[in-house]
Amino acid sequence: MWYYEKKLQYPVRVSTCNPKLARFLIEQYGGADGELAAALRYLNQRYTIPDRVIGLLNDIGTEEFAHLEMIATMVYKLTKDATPIQLKEAGLGSHYVNHGKSLYYENAGGESFTVAYIQSKGDPIADLYEDIAAEEKARSTYQWIINVSDDPALNDSLGFLREREIVHSQRFREAVELIKEEQGQKKAY
Amino acid sequence: MWYYEKKLQYPVRVSTCNPKLARFLIEQYGGADGELAAALRYLNQRYTIPDRVIGLLNDIGTEEFAHLEMIATMVYKLTKDATPIQLKEAGLGSHYVNHGKSLYYENAGGESFTVAYIQSKGDPIADLYEDIAAEEKARSTYQWIINVSDDPALNDSLGFLREREIVHSQRFREAVELIKEEQGQKKAY
Amino acid sequence: MWYYEKKLQYPVRVSTCNPKLARFLIEQYGGADGELAAALRYLNQRYTIPDRVIGLLNDIGTEEFAHLEMIATMVYKLTKDATPIQLKEAGLGSHYVNHGKSLYYENAGGESFTVAYIQSKGDPIADLYEDIAAEEKARSTYQWIINVSDDPALNDSLGFLREREIVHSQRFREAVELIKEEQGQKKAY
Amino acid sequence: MWYYEKKLQYPVRVSTCNPKLARFLIEQYGGADGELAAALRYLNQRYTIPDRVIGLLNDIGTEEFAHLEMIATMVYKLTKDATPIQLKEAGLGSHYVNHGKSLYYENAGGESFTVAYIQSKGDPIADLYEDIAAEEKARSTYQWIINVSDDPALNDSLGFLREREIVHSQRFREAVELIKEEQGQKKAY
Amino acid sequence: MWYYEKKLQYPVRVSTCNPKLARFLIEQYGGADGELAAALRYLNQRYTIPDRVIGLLNDIGTEEFAHLEMIATMVYKLTKDATPIQLKEAGLGSHYVNHGKSLYYENAGGESFTVAYIQSKGDPIADLYEDIAAEEKARSTYQWIINVSDDPALNDSLGFLREREIVHSQRFREAVELIKEEQGQKKAY
Amino acid sequence: MWYYEKKLQYPVRVSTCNPKLARFLIEQYGGADGELAAALRYLNQRYTIPDRVIGLLNDIGTEEFAHLEMIATMVYKLTKDATPIQLKEAGLGSHYVNHGKSLYYENAGGESFTVAYIQSKGDPIADLYEDIAAEEKARSTYQWIINVSDDPALNDSLGFLREREIVHSQRFREAVELIKEEQGQKKAY
Repeated sequence: MWYYEKKLQYPVRVSTCNPKLARFLIEQYGGADGELAAALRYLNQRYTIPDRVIGLLNDIGTEEFAHLEMIATMVYKLTKDATPIQLKEAGLGSHYVNHGKSLYYENAGGESFTVAYIQSKGDPIADLYEDIAAEEKARSTYQWIINVSDDPALNDSLGFLREREIVHSQRFREAVELIKEEQGQKKAY
Repeated sequence: MWYYEKKLQYPVRVSTCNPKLARFLIEQYGGADGELAAALRYLNQRYTIPDRVIGLLNDIGTEEFAHLEMIATMVYKLTKDATPIQLKEAGLGSHYVNHGKSLYYENAGGESFTVAYIQSKGDPIADLYEDIAAEEKARSTYQWIINVSDDPALNDSLGFLREREIVHSQRFREAVELIKEEQGQKKAY
Repeated sequence: MWYYEKKLQYPVRVSTCNPKLARFLIEQYGGADGELAAALRYLNQRYTIPDRVIGLLNDIGTEEFAHLEMIATMVYKLTKDATPIQLKEAGLGSHYVNHGKSLYYENAGGESFTVAYIQSKGDPIADLYEDIAAEEKARSTYQWIINVSDDPALNDSLGFLREREIVHSQRFREAVELIKEEQGQKKAY
Repeated sequence: MWYYEKKLQYPVRVSTCNPKLARFLIEQYGGADGELAAALRYLNQRYTIPDRVIGLLNDIGTEEFAHLEMIATMVYKLTKDATPIQLKEAGLGSHYVNHGKSLYYENAGGESFTVAYIQSKGDPIADLYEDIAAEEKARSTYQWIINVSDDPALNDSLGFLREREIVHSQRFREAVELIKEEQGQKKAY
Repeated sequence: MWYYEKKLQYPVRVSTCNPKLARFLIEQYGGADGELAAALRYLNQRYTIPDRVIGLLNDIGTEEFAHLEMIATMVYKLTKDATPIQLKEAGLGSHYVNHGKSLYYENAGGESFTVAYIQSKGDPIADLYEDIAAEEKARSTYQWIINVSDDPALNDSLGFLREREIVHSQRFREAVELIKEEQGQKKAY
Repeated sequence: MWYYEKKLQYPVRVSTCNPKLARFLIEQYGGADGELAAALRYLNQRYTIPDRVIGLLNDIGTEEFAHLEMIATMVYKLTKDATPIQLKEAGLGSHYVNHGKSLYYENAGGESFTVAYIQSKGDPIADLYEDIAAEEKARSTYQWIINVSDDPALNDSLGFLREREIVHSQRFREAVELIKEEQGQKKAY
């Protein structure tokens, strides 16, 4: 089980009210390769992955929830001072009439999150490559958002998150080698 | 952010390998009124709910993740000793060919989880009635599962979870009255 | 069964051709808390709700179809004189290339209607709270649309519909108390 | 707008409690080519179809709601006397844990209804062929259900509904010829 | 099985970098009545259609893949020289943060492709009317895109594709008559 | 564009009419990691992958369509001689009432195919890890199907397909190294 502490993993700053940018950022909240998808994927795979990798999935899965909270905080900060008319002018009118000023697990195009984005095969090699791919795709998404962002303060936090994905990808690559080695030894005896 | 501790909120026991029952239980893992839906709903609404209710949403949302983990543990225990052929005979063949023996966020009918199940309107009264409805629906689901369960040990844990939903529903009803009172005062001045 | 009469429940006026506004309004046609969702929800629950509430679900369900027709008429009036190029300029180009000038059951973001938005649990308390939540969410949606609308004539009709949702919510709250009382009496004997 | 009268378009009888058959029948309640899909498709197309065909769409759309109610009544009659255990044994356990004994707009495989099943193009010829195809597909579905049904009383009602689809298909074929003729005359002048 | 040859069925030209137009064109790549839907529909129906129509489904299904490739090439040409900022300004920012500059099977509104758009009933008359409707709907889509296009060079290729849909529709109409005749003869003996 | 030749990539044999097995096999026709998903993923990524990998994606994408056809042929052979009642007894009744004896792009649980299963990021490293993961997941699926299959003749064909996925995975691993090397050289100068 989890305990909540009222702080963020890494401080989040935004330069100004900027709902247009919020729209892009929501991709990492409820999009195909966003933080929700990541957290759910890893925590779900824990039950059938070999013992040596359970802790890794647990740690990264829990960290992704912290990232999810960071993204939520950013989106909230970018939109909290906007009027309905300003949201409309920023292209968030369709979000506003459905959800008011609250958040929702959707991608930048407004498509609702579905777990069809993630997979769990019960095969350790397949699951770990799924995880490496997930981290590489999340890294790309952060890069694409940074490329269209006009807020340097926000980009600092996004840069932190992008770096974390690179670290996670590396950890999963090590895990896949470890499992392959373990499987090779089993076959050897 | 959250910290993980390796223990369950409430101990989970199952009487025997019972994949047929696992199939029904998965409803509360990835179904419309399951624990994942509940956790995601409450934690998402935190940003635009009035201050006095944020802590409640945070507490219950975090607890629902603990429930999610309890359900996952139950499903795993009910299936871990089953062979592929036993899974097939228990009606889990279609799950097995897609996910092997791993878990997946789906309902008892095998339909993948979608956030279309949940809503966030950015209106506190609407959001709290959404939450009360969610708890009442979760309570019903636990009752329906208990009605078709043949495992008394499991039913003890399910009874605990059903009671928690009743408590949560009561807390949300109190919150809705509190918000109505607050809104009434605003209008009075 | 139903009989159709060629009139609207309440007259619908729009000030001018206004496809941008039509885009927001479509939320109540095919969105998560729109009139279609409401009608389908109540009429479907009729079969397992206690006898004393069947008539209420039937009446409100039938009225929601009348509201659906009002929304359709508004959307049609707001768009019928627009050229394809005007639709494109109003942000309706993606709707136009898929559906021409016809209507479609989708939300303001263009996401197709799914019954995953609605629920029926076969438990009267859960179903009635689902219905109260639905009405409160629909009330919010009308408010959010009014907040971004620039057509006073349309807002008059929307105000009528918003009021109806408040009345329905009240009726469902009375029904939930009535059922609780009935259940209490059963337990007493 | 519509007026409800408490009677069915055609009397509905079932021989006995038969939840297995109910599962197949639900295909016509919430499946791709079921009565809900049909009603929503025709009523939605009314706004942009040429005037001469509006009445036809209105009449058939309204009749499909009457059919939807017949299907609902059949499903209810086939299941109302079944215990949870009997539902489980009939393969309806996954439906029961999600919806209790209530109905839901889903197909026989338990997949939730989506309007992606239907289309509206705003082109009269395309829309009418969509409608002819819909009726032919509904006719097939009724045939497939009759082929696996073991209830002669129910098959009588299903036979009535299948015949109505054939009549509707014929009416839509006449309409498409009428529109082609009208379009030909326009081009001639 | 299929063999690939590196050429397009019909040459594809675009006048200039035009990401706004690409957004509309994507409707025929991954939309409800697009080329992917068409190809998958016909090739899937081959197995249960009467022998005399198998070749027709095979030919048209294979041709639709060639059309899909033409659309992909057009979309790529319209966007390849655009910077991220230009994509953002053209309304493609939400696509960019999810998919970078790569393609994706989605409609103009950004909704992911689902096979719920297509049907296969195993009844030859129903399946062929499904196919006629599909071609008429694709024809309409091409017309709607041409109506909002500002690129005459592209419109030439789109005109070619629209004409092919008309030819296919005619072929399917002939096939439906042929099957009806065959069924009539069976009944006569 | 593609040319069709009326032969299979590898001969397909089934021992006997076996609709229960067909149900599992359909996972590789329209499931998350099936042949359709694979073909669509690779062919779509061709436009933005570096030149040196285009041919590989093209070859493997085209081969996956050949595999899709092999799966379709297997499913058809396993079911073509079954009566509706036999299909019902084999657990295919819900498929039959929707699709008769025709095929459909769905997974073993009857869930319709969606492109949410696949991704294209426009980043070569991310896309190639997506592809490696896809092949590893497909390999697992074949293994899970073989584990529940009772048809040795069919298992021979499935073994062939499983081996092809292993070869493809290896090819994509080589490609990812090649791209990394290329990127390293760019950074070096």
